[in-house]
Amino acid sequence: MQNIKVYQKSFIEYLEAFAVEKEPKNLYEPVNYILKLGGKRLRPVLTLMTTDIFGGNTKAALDAALSVEVFHNFSLIHDDIMDDAPLRRGKKTVHEKWDLNTGILSGDAMLILAYQLFENYEPDVFQALAQLFSKTALEVCEGQQYDIDFETRDDVTIPEYLKMIEYKTAVLVGAAMKMGTIVARASEDNQNAIYDFGRYLGIAFQLQDDYLDAFGNPETFGKQVGGDILENKKTYLYLKTLELGSSDEQSDLIQTISDNSISDEDKVSRVKTMFNNSGASDATQNAVKDYTNKAFRVLEALNISEDKKQLLRLFGEQLMNRRV
Amino acid sequence: MQNIKVYQKSFIEYLEAFAVEKEPKNLYEPVNYILKLGGKRLRPVLTLMTTDIFGGNTKAALDAALSVEVFHNFSLIHDDIMDDAPLRRGKKTVHEKWDLNTGILSGDAMLILAYQLFENYEPDVFQALAQLFSKTALEVCEGQQYDIDFETRDDVTIPEYLKMIEYKTAVLVGAAMKMGTIVARASEDNQNAIYDFGRYLGIAFQLQDDYLDAFGNPETFGKQVGGDILENKKTYLYLKTLELGSSDEQSDLIQTISDNSISDEDKVSRVKTMFNNSGASDATQNAVKDYTNKAFRVLEALNISEDKKQLLRLFGEQLMNRRV
Repeated sequence: MQNIKVYQKSFIEYLEAFAVEKEPKNLYEPVNYILKLGGKRLRPVLTLMTTDIFGGNTKAALDAALSVEVFHNFSLIHDDIMDDAPLRRGKKTVHEKWDLNTGILSGDAMLILAYQLFENYEPDVFQALAQLFSKTALEVCEGQQYDIDFETRDDVTIPEYLKMIEYKTAVLVGAAMKMGTIVARASEDNQNAIYDFGRYLGIAFQLQDDYLDAFGNPETFGKQVGGDILENKKTYLYLKTLELGSSDEQSDLIQTISDNSISDEDKVSRVKTMFNNSGASDATQNAVKDYTNKAFRVLEALNISEDKKQLLRLFGEQLMNRRV
Repeated sequence: MQNIKVYQKSFIEYLEAFAVEKEPKNLYEPVNYILKLGGKRLRPVLTLMTTDIFGGNTKAALDAALSVEVFHNFSLIHDDIMDDAPLRRGKKTVHEKWDLNTGILSGDAMLILAYQLFENYEPDVFQALAQLFSKTALEVCEGQQYDIDFETRDDVTIPEYLKMIEYKTAVLVGAAMKMGTIVARASEDNQNAIYDFGRYLGIAFQLQDDYLDAFGNPETFGKQVGGDILENKKTYLYLKTLELGSSDEQSDLIQTISDNSISDEDKVSRVKTMFNNSGASDATQNAVKDYTNKAFRVLEALNISEDKKQLLRLFGEQLMNRRV
């Protein structure tokens, strides 16, 4: 069993060697650009780790891992267009550096390239990977659509929100891990269990992200603290505050968050107080714990050695205890 | 052997039944909308016809045929965004009827749905179909990128133009037919021959389209006659006129086509005269014949009965003798 840094290193080497040196340059340069922007490479590392845990050859998992990363970056290019985002990891987004059409078309090419990365697998593994990939990719699109729909709705429920983050974020974590088990030819039960483990951790991860966006340490949190509040995003904290608050508290939150006469600093501070007083902050932290525990309970049923379970547990704990 | 109308009818029935009745509606309604806009359904009909010719079950080819049509419509949605086109088959384009984000995301979903339509095939057929699909889809993206690049270049050569239309249009015709042979489990030689047949016909078809855009009968041609001239498109007619003309004739064409003081009617009429006088019109018609003959020569080597070859030849002739 290797440690996570080793998976990361071998993945990054593989990624660096992947550069698409084909014509037309205007199609493939943006592909290489976004893939080299960096990032934690969390999802592909999970694919390699899972293959290793289930006794597979991690080298054989590199194409599946890369497919997950290429797909993730496809979704970033198209999401950045939809969100009109100028920056990604401190660098210009593809549609800003080039233009809208380049963003659309290079993204399309990446979605296809992600499928092509399965082509060196045996037909049955190829089909299993491609089917899981298609199901997941479609759910990611659905999650993105729900996220867009929620912007203009004021009756979003907590279960709807949870479904949205499950689709937009968590299923790809589950799929990245399940791909590792498919490459390792693990049993179907183990494949499904590891998928649920990843999916629950993914939900916990996103809820933690919601929490840190408001209550993270500004010195270590990568993004602007309070960004979600200023963008009037319907996060778990926000929806839970509405659910738990009296009708006065509800209208106070809605009014404060849309009041343009309040300074940013003041607005963030007032809304955070509401998140705390309503009990929404505690509820969010509890939800993070709940989903992490759901993930850990899935592990118990897994048919692997205790030290391998411990490795997965450790990974989950690191993910949830992060403050950045 | 069935005639083309029968393939068309069974395909349209299958397409009608396909409506994606899933949530979120804002993602899937545009998918159903564009698929129901109509069209000749040329590509899926070719898939069914080819399966039939090679002794396969046309019912088993319906999913592959639908995949081709779903992919084609994905490319229409994204191309219409890139071309800023308000109308498609006389109806609003997806990004006009909804918005840009819906166009991007619904298109993405269709690309994935196209892959999912292979899932009911056996693993080896699935892999063969998906590999051909990925290769083709990527080439279509490359063709679209070349087309965009050519807009701002004034040194496009005829071979470059031919490669662009091959990728943007012809490879999907070849792939649609090859998919039919894959479903029918035809020999690899026959699969490759039928692909080349479709690809050559596809190039001939697009060159014919260039010709008809200028010289078609306004009463029967679907689009505005002279549209390419008014949009200053670098078609085969245009590039061939530059190639064959003297340097005076070259600058005359370039000047006329970009002169905004000339009325549309006048411009179309003057440029058409140049197309004729330079010999470019004849050259274009000859190129259509050449590529049609290339397709027919491929047929000769095919390992099927003479009456089946005759059916394919008839189809090619109908396509090339069209005046609309």
